[in-house]
Amino acid sequence: MKSPSSLEFLTEALRRLPGVGPKSAQRMAYHLMQHDRDGAAMLGRALTQAVEHIHHCARCNTFTENEICETCLDSARDASLLCVVETPADQMMIEQTLTYKGLYFVLMGRLSPLDGIGPKDIHLEKLIARATDGYVTEVVLATNFTNEGEATAHYISETLKARGLKVSRLARGVPVGGELEYVDAGTIARAMLDRRST
Amino acid sequence: MKSPSSLEFLTEALRRLPGVGPKSAQRMAYHLMQHDRDGAAMLGRALTQAVEHIHHCARCNTFTENEICETCLDSARDASLLCVVETPADQMMIEQTLTYKGLYFVLMGRLSPLDGIGPKDIHLEKLIARATDGYVTEVVLATNFTNEGEATAHYISETLKARGLKVSRLARGVPVGGELEYVDAGTIARAMLDRRST
Repeated sequence: MKSPSSLEFLTEALRRLPGVGPKSAQRMAYHLMQHDRDGAAMLGRALTQAVEHIHHCARCNTFTENEICETCLDSARDASLLCVVETPADQMMIEQTLTYKGLYFVLMGRLSPLDGIGPKDIHLEKLIARATDGYVTEVVLATNFTNEGEATAHYISETLKARGLKVSRLARGVPVGGELEYVDAGTIARAMLDRRST
Repeated sequence: MKSPSSLEFLTEALRRLPGVGPKSAQRMAYHLMQHDRDGAAMLGRALTQAVEHIHHCARCNTFTENEICETCLDSARDASLLCVVETPADQMMIEQTLTYKGLYFVLMGRLSPLDGIGPKDIHLEKLIARATDGYVTEVVLATNFTNEGEATAHYISETLKARGLKVSRLARGVPVGGELEYVDAGTIARAMLDRRST
């Protein structure tokens, strides 16, 4: 027996979702067709709409449906702080902490010479223009703490400091709830070097 | 910060997939928008197409894009055998075993009086007409081995036997690879009762 071709196409397409293998994709396809056709139609519309309407903020690169995103337009935000992140997902994680009230700049990537991703691909010129607009006084680097994220932070830091800006980096250390026994040595070493007087 | 509304709608819609909670839905939505817009567009099309084109075979109820499904039209199949399953997904599992060459009838459900699902909702009249077409000599009941599936099998069995048809049920017993120590007592009891001479 062959499944109808549109069911096979659906199963194939569902595998594009992160973390969905052939077996889950099949289960999802049959579930939607058997029990939730409304949900399938809704998800289809949502995807088409998202692809059509979501583009990048002209100022900070994050996802928006307008020319400039809501965050950039929010006058209650502190325009003297600019936080640099790799992706809109990272930006959202920082927003969820409710500890930051400044603005953002989303690189939409990170430096990765091995993959041919250079300063141009992470909108460095645009970041420099953005950071030297006269309002920004401190740039907070919140790229990931991976090798590539660290290299990106270092590169941006050097570039912006050369232009007289104050540049900071998210603190490294033992995670909240972390037990020293289970934290890797590199993290503990960093936490020791960066220890704070209490 | 609020996510753009079409991104929120997409996250909401992704939660309709089985096994996808709020956190995975968010991860999927951001992943698609950041790294795989083609995949998102393709999945959107696949869903819309599937909802539009997939309906039920007029003869066996399974999913098809045509009036009658490929399996029902396949003349190489043994028309004297009719296997009754609850869902198209169950049918597909049986097909994957390559042990059955007869035809199918898909109930698209199971009897469940508590949920108000009676004989009419599982197309019983249609099944009787199908099973008494003159070609079918044996009906193999392959509903699930849950309480409801068993009750459904029992009900169909009584109905069809009253019409002089031979009715069989998938064998119950210890699963392949099963270790007795870890198999539940009900299964072992049934395997003991249904033991076969070797």
